Amino acid sequence: MRELLIHRPASVRDVYISGAARLAHPDVAGAARSATRWVHTVTDEVSAALSADCQGVCAVASADAVVREWPADGGLYVLIAQGRDPGNVGTIIRTADAMGARAVLTVAGTVDVTSPKVVRASAGSVFHLPVIPHPAFGAAVDALHARGARVLGTSGGPRAVPLPEVEEDGALAEPHAWVLGNEARGLDPDETAACDLLVAIPMTGLAESLNVASAAAVCLYASQRALGAGRPAGAVDGHGGARAGTVVRWHD
Amino acid sequence: MRELLIHRPASVRDVYISGAARLAHPDVAGAARSATRWVHTVTDEVSAALSADCQGVCAVASADAVVREWPADGGLYVLIAQGRDPGNVGTIIRTADAMGARAVLTVAGTVDVTSPKVVRASAGSVFHLPVIPHPAFGAAVDALHARGARVLGTSGGPRAVPLPEVEEDGALAEPHAWVLGNEARGLDPDETAACDLLVAIPMTGLAESLNVASAAAVCLYASQRALGAGRPAGAVDGHGGARAGTVVRWHD
Repeated sequence: MRELLIHRPASVRDVYISGAARLAHPDVAGAARSATRWVHTVTDEVSAALSADCQGVCAVASADAVVREWPADGGLYVLIAQGRDPGNVGTIIRTADAMGARAVLTVAGTVDVTSPKVVRASAGSVFHLPVIPHPAFGAAVDALHARGARVLGTSGGPRAVPLPEVEEDGALAEPHAWVLGNEARGLDPDETAACDLLVAIPMTGLAESLNVASAAAVCLYASQRALGAGRPAGAVDGHGGARAGTVVRWHD
Repeated sequence: MRELLIHRPASVRDVYISGAARLAHPDVAGAARSATRWVHTVTDEVSAALSADCQGVCAVASADAVVREWPADGGLYVLIAQGRDPGNVGTIIRTADAMGARAVLTVAGTVDVTSPKVVRASAGSVFHLPVIPHPAFGAAVDALHARGARVLGTSGGPRAVPLPEVEEDGALAEPHAWVLGNEARGLDPDETAACDLLVAIPMTGLAESLNVASAAAVCLYASQRALGAGRPAGAVDGHGGARAGTVVRWHD
């Protein structure tokens, strides 16, 4: 919520906030007043009726709160192919933001990134970096190639190169995109064939595979490191107002 | 489900399986027959009534399906302090398993790791490695110290050392435990004070923090690497029967 109000104030139409939330999150209340003249104080009952899980703050925003345009070329991208779970998709967008990705691409069939569950799991990162929809996987790969980015697929198949080798050969220091497949099926054969390189994360225990958002964290952290970026200190959760509240998309 | 049937067959009392699930997951059906003589074929309606989201397979197991005893000393551990979200807790256990952790410790207040949502998010990893409950954070830290493990807390605070420095100084090549805090608050001051070292994951973008399971993935991957372990090829999701089905705990 705070991220919407601070980073995309022009997209905010109305904010509904309870008295309790105003006290608990004064930074959010202040950002709401700066973003729009339509800040409405509501009772806890009205707040709960607006959204079951909004922690007393609910905003109505236009769909352009999520930027859909390409940024300048180069660096790091993420391509989400058929991500069905809002928690995973939001978490991947949050990690992409944290690790300095330029943009996230989604393929048709992926959950709506303006849905409240994705916005919440992203901790507001959907308002930080462009999230660009594509009609098909091939179109997204073509767009990445046109921008000089190599397309790396996460895979456990026999053709996959272990991540440490990919790091050592310098591939992550050049512009590239990580492709993350569907939660249940992984990448399908067409998607696999369209990748420039398949990469496997080494594993030790009995688990057959990683959760897709966990795999994204490992890969994107390796990329950030190779690209030479990274502030010294990032937090792990415990970030107050960023996830407080619900954002409702306003269809213009 | 498959992981329960294969790794803890003696804990399985009954398996209820629909005709469709028997065809879709023949490996699960076979493992069920090997685990128990009480495999019951049920209709889709009965299966759905047993558990809303069981994909046609439901098992009743005793609580000892999750091992609670300490393994041999040394290596890598994970300590979950007040993990409230079953998806996060299950995903952390799955990653701990994948990266070769010896055991996961939980502190009272963490969600029940035998709950269906945790079991499902863990993709069966709760049946692969010990998950040891502790009454309080201090008791868990004492138990880790008694086994020669250094306790590393994930934190964004000013005292935290960036992860690459911790990797370079060799700290991850010795026995250690990663402490993961509550999703909303992170580590509280008492928990922070009890850690031997606070570690920060460098970040580049506008995100204030990482999801706790994503942070776990980054830290545990670094540990696996430092400990010199790791099979060359791990998969990313798409692992068929491991997550199919629901496990219901049987209170003896």
